[in-house]
Amino acid sequence: MSLVKLYDTTLRDGTQGEDISFLVEDKIRIAHKLDEVGINYIEGGWPGSNPKDIAFFKEIKKEKLSQAKIAAFGSTRRAKITPDKDQNIRTLIQAEPDAITIFGKTWDFHVREALRIPLEENLELIFDSLEYLKSRAPEVFYDAEHFFDGYKANPEYAIKTLKAAEQAKADCIILCDTNGGTMPFELAQIIKDVKKHIKTPLGIHTHNDSECAVANSLHAVEQGIVHVQGTINGFGERCGNANLCSIIPALRLKMGKECISAEQLRKLRDLSRFVYELANLSPDKHQPYVGNSAFAHKGGVHVSAIQRHAETYEHLRPELVGNTTRVLISDLSGRANILAKAEEFNINLDSKDPVTLDILDNIKDMENRGYQFEGAEASFELLMKRALGTHRKFFSVIGFRVIDEKRHEDQKPLSEATIMVKVGGKVEHTAAEGNGPVNALDNAIRKALEKFYPRLKEVKLLDYKVRVLPAGQGTASAIRVLIESGDKESRWGTVGVSDNIIDASYQALIDSIEYKLHKGEEGEAGKK
Amino acid sequence: MSLVKLYDTTLRDGTQGEDISFLVEDKIRIAHKLDEVGINYIEGGWPGSNPKDIAFFKEIKKEKLSQAKIAAFGSTRRAKITPDKDQNIRTLIQAEPDAITIFGKTWDFHVREALRIPLEENLELIFDSLEYLKSRAPEVFYDAEHFFDGYKANPEYAIKTLKAAEQAKADCIILCDTNGGTMPFELAQIIKDVKKHIKTPLGIHTHNDSECAVANSLHAVEQGIVHVQGTINGFGERCGNANLCSIIPALRLKMGKECISAEQLRKLRDLSRFVYELANLSPDKHQPYVGNSAFAHKGGVHVSAIQRHAETYEHLRPELVGNTTRVLISDLSGRANILAKAEEFNINLDSKDPVTLDILDNIKDMENRGYQFEGAEASFELLMKRALGTHRKFFSVIGFRVIDEKRHEDQKPLSEATIMVKVGGKVEHTAAEGNGPVNALDNAIRKALEKFYPRLKEVKLLDYKVRVLPAGQGTASAIRVLIESGDKESRWGTVGVSDNIIDASYQALIDSIEYKLHKGEEGEAGKK
Repeated sequence: MSLVKLYDTTLRDGTQGEDISFLVEDKIRIAHKLDEVGINYIEGGWPGSNPKDIAFFKEIKKEKLSQAKIAAFGSTRRAKITPDKDQNIRTLIQAEPDAITIFGKTWDFHVREALRIPLEENLELIFDSLEYLKSRAPEVFYDAEHFFDGYKANPEYAIKTLKAAEQAKADCIILCDTNGGTMPFELAQIIKDVKKHIKTPLGIHTHNDSECAVANSLHAVEQGIVHVQGTINGFGERCGNANLCSIIPALRLKMGKECISAEQLRKLRDLSRFVYELANLSPDKHQPYVGNSAFAHKGGVHVSAIQRHAETYEHLRPELVGNTTRVLISDLSGRANILAKAEEFNINLDSKDPVTLDILDNIKDMENRGYQFEGAEASFELLMKRALGTHRKFFSVIGFRVIDEKRHEDQKPLSEATIMVKVGGKVEHTAAEGNGPVNALDNAIRKALEKFYPRLKEVKLLDYKVRVLPAGQGTASAIRVLIESGDKESRWGTVGVSDNIIDASYQALIDSIEYKLHKGEEGEAGKK
Repeated sequence: MSLVKLYDTTLRDGTQGEDISFLVEDKIRIAHKLDEVGINYIEGGWPGSNPKDIAFFKEIKKEKLSQAKIAAFGSTRRAKITPDKDQNIRTLIQAEPDAITIFGKTWDFHVREALRIPLEENLELIFDSLEYLKSRAPEVFYDAEHFFDGYKANPEYAIKTLKAAEQAKADCIILCDTNGGTMPFELAQIIKDVKKHIKTPLGIHTHNDSECAVANSLHAVEQGIVHVQGTINGFGERCGNANLCSIIPALRLKMGKECISAEQLRKLRDLSRFVYELANLSPDKHQPYVGNSAFAHKGGVHVSAIQRHAETYEHLRPELVGNTTRVLISDLSGRANILAKAEEFNINLDSKDPVTLDILDNIKDMENRGYQFEGAEASFELLMKRALGTHRKFFSVIGFRVIDEKRHEDQKPLSEATIMVKVGGKVEHTAAEGNGPVNALDNAIRKALEKFYPRLKEVKLLDYKVRVLPAGQGTASAIRVLIESGDKESRWGTVGVSDNIIDASYQALIDSIEYKLHKGEEGEAGKK
């Protein structure tokens, strides 16, 4: 197996993405995760550009990494000065990284318009900077910015810039698709041409502006490139950088390239979610390999086939990247989906059992009325428990009233709910305010029940979605409410449908609370 | 320029995606948008699989499309029966589409394991089904399911299945990467091989499980394929289908292929957002070409270069796909949008007029609070009228109260609203019931105002959408309500945002009524 080195730039180029901002502590934690998963190089930042990045290089020195090397990023020297006088280059050396990566201009248009120097002088910038750094850092890499655009505009000059880097003995020359506009068939051809002129090991750095960043990176490896730059989850400016979470499994499982180990690959999904978590972003459900939906099946045809042979509709075993197959419940589903779902919840259903048919009929009927159990698996579990008679009634709601009142033209409406519940013969009657009727009702229900079930205090309402069906009748139509709740351990979704939004919300709220109470029971039973 | 036909399957394969569910009315609206943008074929559904899809084909017949053809999807006949006896095939013909697409098995493994019939018999299934349909539909397409996996497993058999389709005179044979696992360099090579054996025009249908769906589709076109299937925004099962929003601009702007017109291409971003809106999903900011961040620049180096020459860090001009450059630090964008929008509404705004700057500031502030004017252009027009002083106050709401009450455990809650409005010095105080608080409030407001403005009786509330932003705080988060209203002549959208759902709904309802009253005034003025 030939070897490919992985170079992560989540902490540098990734932070150029809109919404992405890491504290130094976050960066240190991410660096440890990247190290554990077997990433070879971790580009920590551009020390010449901001003090936060300087702090990272100082802090990371105190940490023990198992194998990863830390790289610092910067640019070639400025015109008219020598490298030893260039502040950016001096800061790079002061950061004392294991590797230094500098970028330089390839595209003649950029040399003229951005640097505003003669083309020859740019070659000197590249050569001088790399030669100076080469004796002052263990490894030195050269990022040829806008390489593909530059090559298309002026191939001879583009190659000259690479030759300058080669003469300065750069350890690797990285071809960058900085604007992300290169088509995969162009890229493969250009790399073939480059290899005729350049003997230094080559790397690839792509952006996703044409939705081709991953394909372009894989093409490059197919053409013999040995160093791949990218970010976790494809974070990065505009449409993002090449997504290492999609590149790594393809390299190992589809192209037979040696990079991280099989054991490390099984941590890929965890790594992806960890980075989302620290960036405070919701994971992309549909993300290839690591997303929640990546191996989720909805169509009845697919589901029954998957039950027999997973490879019929899965391009690889999800366990290899730490993911799992999921079966979705929907109006496209059949009996196979229901049985598979029951199994996930450790509920034994026999396909010939009349209860199974009852559940199936019940679900089809509910789906016709607008219910949807994708994202509402807790409601689905309760439904099965009710059908099987293993459901316990923890409380009953005798009644409630919600009042929204606006008393002046410029005043916002106020919402207040009163509620009466009964638990084991005891009646509780209370009231609460809220931002709108549903929030007020939620507050009141929980206030009433927490007295009897203190563990409800752990529950938080995480998301609340409303969908009107069918359109065409406005607010008088059927309304579907999806609620996502969570506690310290897990998250669960519940659903309610009614022509009345309060009723639909009420159903979903009650399911969420019942699910939590069931979960607590089972947890306690397990402890005995 | 060579011609490529675009085949959209958002309404069929797209709805297999987790979270994606369209009503028949949504599908009709999306079909109109796809038609306007120049999509050649619109696959509306699988009539043999569910009644909702049958309803679509019935309804779409009543609509006038400018150029798009409607396609229905199904499978080859079942084993042991003739096509005329096959319910799935009969339903396809009964749907009376402009084109019929059926899928069949290419992969010997699937024939053995899923169909459980001899390999030869599968060839008969393909031939018989296509031959039967060919004389009963204007165009017939064949989707070769799992083509690439099948070809890798048994190339001879895979080609035989295509030959069966060719002999039955299928108008196009579509090579499907059903599991989405094919690498782009493999795909190009396999298509080269296929073209040695098959003369029928070829199509491509890819999935994004390896994050290569767009690249694979573009490769296929580069290899001479003339029919491309995909979905808007890449909606679809697991990791989605090939994203037409990324494929179309690459075909036209980078590969010189003839498909939609330049004018239609400028509607691409609108189309993308329209489909997100009807799916009730948040648009992906980082989506190539059409996302909010696709041409957003954060890095200082990039920003100053962009100011001088956009092409330094943009792979194409965002205006070509209806998008705009955004500079994240010093936001200079937007003014051009506002002026263009005003022009659409026949409102004269001068870019140097201080009112224009006021509107811009106001909109930015509102957008920061969660407002969104896509799909709420009536609210946007009212906002401009208010800024220009051409807005007339038709009424004021002094106050209201909404009560939702549930008196027994098994009773549905009842909603009642009381309202007090003032019109030209006269006060009206009345009450109404409704299905939930918003419907009750809408009924009460209109009951009070119809007395003064009888033309409000023409208004119908067509759709009501609620979105919670930002997720993570449940029902206490900010809430955005979008309302679509209509009368005999037109439809209009309005928006409201608040941490209180009643308040947000109230804002959108009031805007809808004011818009109708303004519209009436202008109509009457026009008649004089």
